[in-house]
Amino acid sequence: MPRQLHLNAFLMTTGHHEASWRLPESDPSAHVDLAHYVRLARTAERGTFDSLFLADGPQLWSSVAQRPAGALEPLTLLTALATATEHIGLIATASTSYNSPYNLARKFASLDIISGGRAGWNIVTTAGAEAARNFGLDAEPAHAERYARAAEFLDVALKLWDSWEDDAIVADKAAGVWGDDAKIHPPRHRGRYFSVEGALNVPRTPQGYPLLVQAGSSEDGKAFAARYAEAVFTAQQTIEDARAFYADLKSRTVREGRDPEHVKVLPGIVPVLGSTEAEARAQEELLEDHIVHRHGVEHLERLLQLPAGSLDLDAELPADLPPESEIEGAKSRYTLVVELARRERLTVRRLIGRLGGGRGHLTFAGTPEQVADAIETWFTQGAADGFNIMPPVLPSGLELFVDHVVPLLRARGLLRTEYGPRTTLRQRYGLPRPANQYVRPAGAPALV
Amino acid sequence: MPRQLHLNAFLMTTGHHEASWRLPESDPSAHVDLAHYVRLARTAERGTFDSLFLADGPQLWSSVAQRPAGALEPLTLLTALATATEHIGLIATASTSYNSPYNLARKFASLDIISGGRAGWNIVTTAGAEAARNFGLDAEPAHAERYARAAEFLDVALKLWDSWEDDAIVADKAAGVWGDDAKIHPPRHRGRYFSVEGALNVPRTPQGYPLLVQAGSSEDGKAFAARYAEAVFTAQQTIEDARAFYADLKSRTVREGRDPEHVKVLPGIVPVLGSTEAEARAQEELLEDHIVHRHGVEHLERLLQLPAGSLDLDAELPADLPPESEIEGAKSRYTLVVELARRERLTVRRLIGRLGGGRGHLTFAGTPEQVADAIETWFTQGAADGFNIMPPVLPSGLELFVDHVVPLLRARGLLRTEYGPRTTLRQRYGLPRPANQYVRPAGAPALV
Repeated sequence: MPRQLHLNAFLMTTGHHEASWRLPESDPSAHVDLAHYVRLARTAERGTFDSLFLADGPQLWSSVAQRPAGALEPLTLLTALATATEHIGLIATASTSYNSPYNLARKFASLDIISGGRAGWNIVTTAGAEAARNFGLDAEPAHAERYARAAEFLDVALKLWDSWEDDAIVADKAAGVWGDDAKIHPPRHRGRYFSVEGALNVPRTPQGYPLLVQAGSSEDGKAFAARYAEAVFTAQQTIEDARAFYADLKSRTVREGRDPEHVKVLPGIVPVLGSTEAEARAQEELLEDHIVHRHGVEHLERLLQLPAGSLDLDAELPADLPPESEIEGAKSRYTLVVELARRERLTVRRLIGRLGGGRGHLTFAGTPEQVADAIETWFTQGAADGFNIMPPVLPSGLELFVDHVVPLLRARGLLRTEYGPRTTLRQRYGLPRPANQYVRPAGAPALV
Repeated sequence: MPRQLHLNAFLMTTGHHEASWRLPESDPSAHVDLAHYVRLARTAERGTFDSLFLADGPQLWSSVAQRPAGALEPLTLLTALATATEHIGLIATASTSYNSPYNLARKFASLDIISGGRAGWNIVTTAGAEAARNFGLDAEPAHAERYARAAEFLDVALKLWDSWEDDAIVADKAAGVWGDDAKIHPPRHRGRYFSVEGALNVPRTPQGYPLLVQAGSSEDGKAFAARYAEAVFTAQQTIEDARAFYADLKSRTVREGRDPEHVKVLPGIVPVLGSTEAEARAQEELLEDHIVHRHGVEHLERLLQLPAGSLDLDAELPADLPPESEIEGAKSRYTLVVELARRERLTVRRLIGRLGGGRGHLTFAGTPEQVADAIETWFTQGAADGFNIMPPVLPSGLELFVDHVVPLLRARGLLRTEYGPRTTLRQRYGLPRPANQYVRPAGAPALV
């Protein structure tokens, strides 16, 4: 069997295009409608996707005028979706800056048990002062600080998930002994950001711990991914950039002493589908016509850390923007946007049109055949292990992809035709179940 | 229609009796088995209970030998149960000491939306140093400090739940305006324990906010309940104590300017059922025979804040125990246990037997008729608005109650025979939907 594609369905309210909610077909309250998400999850499962994914940030945007704002908390929503699906993985975004390790480790362990081993965690450090001010801080912590906290958070979470050996439950009714205290390992962690003394109050889960996913492509982000991540979501505009990113991340993973096959790289793609190329372009233009540019300017000014009113819709970006090193927010996204504008010499209006579709991810408008060709090319030429599918309009965009692109990928032998027996999410991604750090291999000396 | 009983099913792994897991019928891994909880939830719904409830604490007991330890995180488990049920309320315990208001308010809002308005929050301040040490503290915060934090937590959470007016979503597709920024009210809270600037990123929910439940019966606990709680769980050993508690709490509620009908008092009861009184007593003795007293002694020494090894199984409690005012842990539970032991002159062995059944809640062994009589007596004589049903063994104890006690309560006109149309949890408890604090009544001056 040839190497298999990994597909992740990135779900977002009425779709990834910021104007999608304005189309006649869209439900503007879809973001709080469980039935909408159940339909999407079942569609992705019909398409034998590996997983579905919810992005998140713990703040409301400064204005709710532009488009559907707010969202059900991802771990809560995915728990409900776990009961509505059987096979698909469930990846929730959660922040290391605004959670405590004990609570978050427990929630993921609970979801992993309830879903039969289908939980994944997209680890984010959460850029932005708005989030910080919802958690007692006056300003956003510095980028490097956020990543240092994230690394310690992961170390603590991994200790917590390993704090029960797999066979810690004895259940000897006759003797009145339920568990074996010798197989419980309290972390007794005292670090720079966290002190966590006791063992988790959930046994070790089907996967050991959730699939670890990461999406930041800054230097700090890539270093973090190489050390911890098992799947990486990334935004790449060209196959050349995507191949360079792919090669860089795999070699960093090797330098961390890990098997490069144990981290899967999934660029985002926004497929705008039509039965002809012209139909696809018309759909793209229809969406762009619905953008309210005023909102886009405000958003771009915040991203570029410019004063309000400094951008001219019909001019290019200012020449004197600061380098990425001076940005404390979402670094890799900053660079991607600036480079896209410079490379294609886009006016602010055109840049907003391009970003409106996928916030910097690759938008590909075409026939199902053309989209399948692009996917195959990136997949076979060292740019991707799979894709993060970001339909511009939901639910229709996911249904078009599953009904028209998935059959082509299956016919080419690139994607499973059925799930087969139930497995964990980690098994779907071709990854081994992690060993417990507190259990020594046979014959090895005790670690703790 | 006569005044109606409110029934809450307090679910706990294999049952409330600490030895229940040792019975042949019990599954020692029930605590992590979703199917077990789905079965319980559907049984309670068959019995037209108002709600079900999960207790919780963010720590693992110091030993897992005694009985099933750890539990799925309640909000996660209740979200899964929301999809398996239609009518029953879902009350999760969560701590004000070890959560941040933004995250917790959002999770409850998400559950309220997903369940169609069936969420409830049992507000706890979490006693004990073990929990504290899982969240960066060296020792448990003082009792009064925990309650001061809880009060501010509630104020912030209420601001967050009200931060969207009910009609903040405009959804004007033609004009490109999704939400009305004038109907979003960021808390801008700066307090002693919390600073929370922005609005919640979830719209106002079907209930406005979850039903607020409280269970501490200390002075601080009762003051808190009178101010905020809409339902109160309490442990009372005699009808006299229960009537005094009931009257005290209702009058405190009036002194807070609230309608005493808007707080429902539900004592806990552990029904040990048999088709004859002798059969019920035999079941009680069977359970008591399975207690491992060594564990009970350790637990009691911790509760009473005594050094290990200081209790004698066959003697009464020491005479020189400190007054409740010197206890920083679970104050009302401390007093209840000490008074029970003194009143009935129990040896430590007998005290452990009594506590093993319901941890201080009233155990009532008898026929279904006798249990229904006790419930009716307490309900009609000013001791209760309903009951927190705590079956000693699960699932069988809940099934016995629903099959044999519920029909008697229905025949006496004390309990609904069917749910009728879908309503919110707050409506089941006969409470009004709360007004939004940021919306002025017609004709009143603006508040903000």
